[in-house]
Amino acid sequence: MTEITLTLRPIGFISTPFKSKYAAPRQPATALRKSTGTIKLRPGYNFEQALEDLREFDYIWVIFWFNKNSGWKPMVLPPHGDRKKRGVFSTRSPHRPNPIGLSLCKLVDIKGRSIRIENPDMLDGTPVLDIKPYIPHAESHAGAKSGWIGQSNEQTPRPYKVAIAPEVRSSLKLVDREERREIVEYLKEILTRDPHPHIYRRIKTSSDGNSVIAVKRWRFMFSLEEGTVRVFGVAHDRERGTQP
Amino acid sequence: MTEITLTLRPIGFISTPFKSKYAAPRQPATALRKSTGTIKLRPGYNFEQALEDLREFDYIWVIFWFNKNSGWKPMVLPPHGDRKKRGVFSTRSPHRPNPIGLSLCKLVDIKGRSIRIENPDMLDGTPVLDIKPYIPHAESHAGAKSGWIGQSNEQTPRPYKVAIAPEVRSSLKLVDREERREIVEYLKEILTRDPHPHIYRRIKTSSDGNSVIAVKRWRFMFSLEEGTVRVFGVAHDRERGTQP
Repeated sequence: MTEITLTLRPIGFISTPFKSKYAAPRQPATALRKSTGTIKLRPGYNFEQALEDLREFDYIWVIFWFNKNSGWKPMVLPPHGDRKKRGVFSTRSPHRPNPIGLSLCKLVDIKGRSIRIENPDMLDGTPVLDIKPYIPHAESHAGAKSGWIGQSNEQTPRPYKVAIAPEVRSSLKLVDREERREIVEYLKEILTRDPHPHIYRRIKTSSDGNSVIAVKRWRFMFSLEEGTVRVFGVAHDRERGTQP
Repeated sequence: MTEITLTLRPIGFISTPFKSKYAAPRQPATALRKSTGTIKLRPGYNFEQALEDLREFDYIWVIFWFNKNSGWKPMVLPPHGDRKKRGVFSTRSPHRPNPIGLSLCKLVDIKGRSIRIENPDMLDGTPVLDIKPYIPHAESHAGAKSGWIGQSNEQTPRPYKVAIAPEVRSSLKLVDREERREIVEYLKEILTRDPHPHIYRRIKTSSDGNSVIAVKRWRFMFSLEEGTVRVFGVAHDRERGTQP
């Protein structure tokens, strides 16, 4: 087979509140809190004109480049679901043979070459490759079977409550406000779904029978009591934990 | 801005019944007749494994390369709708800054590295770049506003009937069965929606007040009588038409 290749250039870049993968929601519809992102298309290509008629759509497809990822494996362990590895083409994992991402985004506004969208799930600075209108009559299949994703807890109510001890919140005051919010939201995002040990979610059982979840260079100690995850301690890097 | 580029290699190729753009439906959901296509992924990359868990989904996203197209313009004239040029990002036109196509396809079956889908809208031999599962709870928005597409006749009932005269059908017996079927389906696809003059649909009013539509190297003469398009003549290339 002749080796043919396609070379793409970003049409623009998106700015979002998410500086790291810990902060970004899995898909736009799974975001816990409302956020907005702005796609800025590049100047000099008449992209202002190419955006005409788009503002009359409620949703747009954003096709982007997972530029922070390299390499892929045939099987991946999704961050949600029942802790089973899945074939990568049955997932929306960023680690794919061709690192192309696809997100359906609610359109907020278009001004010139700037497109504001609601609840982006891309990291800040992600290169955007294409924008397409959402076509409800062809692309809306509410009752479609969705395999392991349909069975996973992605769309079911979050079964766990998360209580973060005041001491833990105090310790976090060492980090700046933005990062603190990121960390707390990530903790809630993961632990409200499933606080059980998971290699990608970086959750382990510690020697004392409690659990530890790693977020960036922080380690949070927690216990599970009747459906509530109690985060009672935190340690940074190799420091000792703050415990009540 | 630093010029960064992304180089992609096809993960496979799709075979479909559509040898030319005249034969391919606009989107999978607009196909008049049921057809199937088969995506064959390349050997030697463990793609068999990467496809695991996918067969439990009803629909899959196929991201592909519009490899027959080069060049793009900011405004395009869609084949349907009200004969107005639209900003290319508000259309699904194959002529885009990055020639990436996106189609939601009904999954029929997966065997090894072969994925059979229903009603593909890609041309035969199209390189496939990625396959992703469809996530109904995030991607199904039946009531979403869809701008000019929602207002166009893409999703409304086809208002015109098409009657092809027996003489015209006889003349077409000169071409092989596959191509004949393609031509007739394309005629119906276009004329049931809107038989009025349109540069991309290659419909003109002729000097005698009737209309002519060009399909490949064929010219079909037709008249419009109370909601019925009567195709009464056909000519090939520079030959004279067969008229009743």
